[in-house]
Amino acid sequence: MPAKKLGQPLFGRVALIGIGLIGSSLSHAMRRGGLAGTIVGHARTAATRSSSVRLALVDTVYETPAEAADAADLVILCAPVGACGALAEAIGPVLKRGAILTDVGSVKAAIVRDCGPHVPEGVHFIPGHPIAGTEQSGPSAGFATLFDGRWCLLTPVPGSDAAAIEKLKTFWEALGSKVDLMTPEHHDMVLAITSHLPHLIAYNVVNTAAHLERVTDSEVIKFSAGGFRDFTRIAASDPTMWRDVFLNNKEAVLEMLGRFTEDLSALQRAIRFGDGETLFKLFSDAREIRRGVLQAGQDTAAPDFGRHAGATEKA
Amino acid sequence: MPAKKLGQPLFGRVALIGIGLIGSSLSHAMRRGGLAGTIVGHARTAATRSSSVRLALVDTVYETPAEAADAADLVILCAPVGACGALAEAIGPVLKRGAILTDVGSVKAAIVRDCGPHVPEGVHFIPGHPIAGTEQSGPSAGFATLFDGRWCLLTPVPGSDAAAIEKLKTFWEALGSKVDLMTPEHHDMVLAITSHLPHLIAYNVVNTAAHLERVTDSEVIKFSAGGFRDFTRIAASDPTMWRDVFLNNKEAVLEMLGRFTEDLSALQRAIRFGDGETLFKLFSDAREIRRGVLQAGQDTAAPDFGRHAGATEKA
Repeated sequence: MPAKKLGQPLFGRVALIGIGLIGSSLSHAMRRGGLAGTIVGHARTAATRSSSVRLALVDTVYETPAEAADAADLVILCAPVGACGALAEAIGPVLKRGAILTDVGSVKAAIVRDCGPHVPEGVHFIPGHPIAGTEQSGPSAGFATLFDGRWCLLTPVPGSDAAAIEKLKTFWEALGSKVDLMTPEHHDMVLAITSHLPHLIAYNVVNTAAHLERVTDSEVIKFSAGGFRDFTRIAASDPTMWRDVFLNNKEAVLEMLGRFTEDLSALQRAIRFGDGETLFKLFSDAREIRRGVLQAGQDTAAPDFGRHAGATEKA
Repeated sequence: MPAKKLGQPLFGRVALIGIGLIGSSLSHAMRRGGLAGTIVGHARTAATRSSSVRLALVDTVYETPAEAADAADLVILCAPVGACGALAEAIGPVLKRGAILTDVGSVKAAIVRDCGPHVPEGVHFIPGHPIAGTEQSGPSAGFATLFDGRWCLLTPVPGSDAAAIEKLKTFWEALGSKVDLMTPEHHDMVLAITSHLPHLIAYNVVNTAAHLERVTDSEVIKFSAGGFRDFTRIAASDPTMWRDVFLNNKEAVLEMLGRFTEDLSALQRAIRFGDGETLFKLFSDAREIRRGVLQAGQDTAAPDFGRHAGATEKA
């Protein structure tokens, strides 16, 4: 669902604070839609700053976040969740009255807690989270279609300005997204099950596999096509980003983990006692959810993710 | 790695006992390579028998496994592991002297245990397992390229004939596979971690998600793009096949599950106590294994499985 081009830019000056997978994809998608007059940015390392200019992701890049945020109409924090508090503190003093400050972090209550206190009167602070990404990181990983058809969740805080929320919603829709609103707390609970737990589990399976004595790493790698390789892809995601997610959504993740472990114990028991009926029922039920995901347009129906040309042709 | 066409068929009459995803893919790949003079088959249901004729998967289809196996030079059991013992018993009396009997099951020691006693003197019984598949099932799910570049493991039993092993190896290579040999017991241990545990975990995450009170199923589906959707794909695999895998590889799966749970407890503890260093190290280590999987050609390097056109272009 490529967004239609708007008549004129929604925002004059947009500042990307952090230019990795999401920041660079935002730039590509903004340019595709003609959504920004000027795109400026800040990146922590000289290497990323130079890449972002070379790749034309930003018109100007700055060494400090405050220089980038200065006079911006829209400021988007695109850094790991754990870094956002300090960034908000650094840019707070220069934020323009009437500007919108948002972010793209995978955790929302912690963003409200860490950034909220640094947002000056008259600036519209509306945390956000595009549910989109790949296992790649860095400024060259981005692409314009990343947000197409994916959901972006906005989690306004009490007192958020309705017109500003509407404008940010229009912006995300123009980037290709569908937009939903919820509280930061509910967001963190939903994402704990749909994203944080799956990543934790994937990291853990890969870790378990790497430390076996009776099966070598090279066997694990060679024979990974039976399911394991999909976990390795998820577990290839950015370690800093994910460390920050788990440190900042602790309660919800621990709750989901508790339930997961409970359910796994029941499954383990069924295996131990050869209870085929329980296994069959549970495995059949799981297909229903898959059907829902496909119907909702949130995944490709091509078998095996379309890895085989022959399979996609038949799909 | 499409196999090169052989001068003449490797086998005169090949019998597929069971015609689902693997059986039908075998047929397509045999036809592509000209590996069989005649392909015949047996399927349990009338619907599958009629599909397999309509799709030209077999030249003749039979209602009983013995009719299909009769006079065949190669017999391939392509049924769930739990069904193979009875099938071997049914076809044992008609198996031709000098014929090769193999299978494609995901568990090997149980196949040896269940089928071995029914194999008559003079028939070469060589269990096998192609590490390839998709989440789709049934006779229309197959395609010729399924085995290309994937490993097929053969697990000969004591006394297996060397020339017969060599011939079956040539057959699998002509289907597009790479072939390795190992004992049935070691196979079951390797697959427990690379395939069985990942599937069990995926089924369990989907099950946990479906039974939450504070997050609805429709939210889980809508916002699945953050990782969960990949688990739903794996959990869409055939329930009968997977029930049989867990019932028949109990010890190895329980051992891997024990280690997984141990490791998960350590991870849970790191989250609870905010130990970012441990989390970061573990998440970084997981990237190494991913690199190995890509270098071994066992997965696509396209970001996000190439779901985004923009991403594959850049990959």
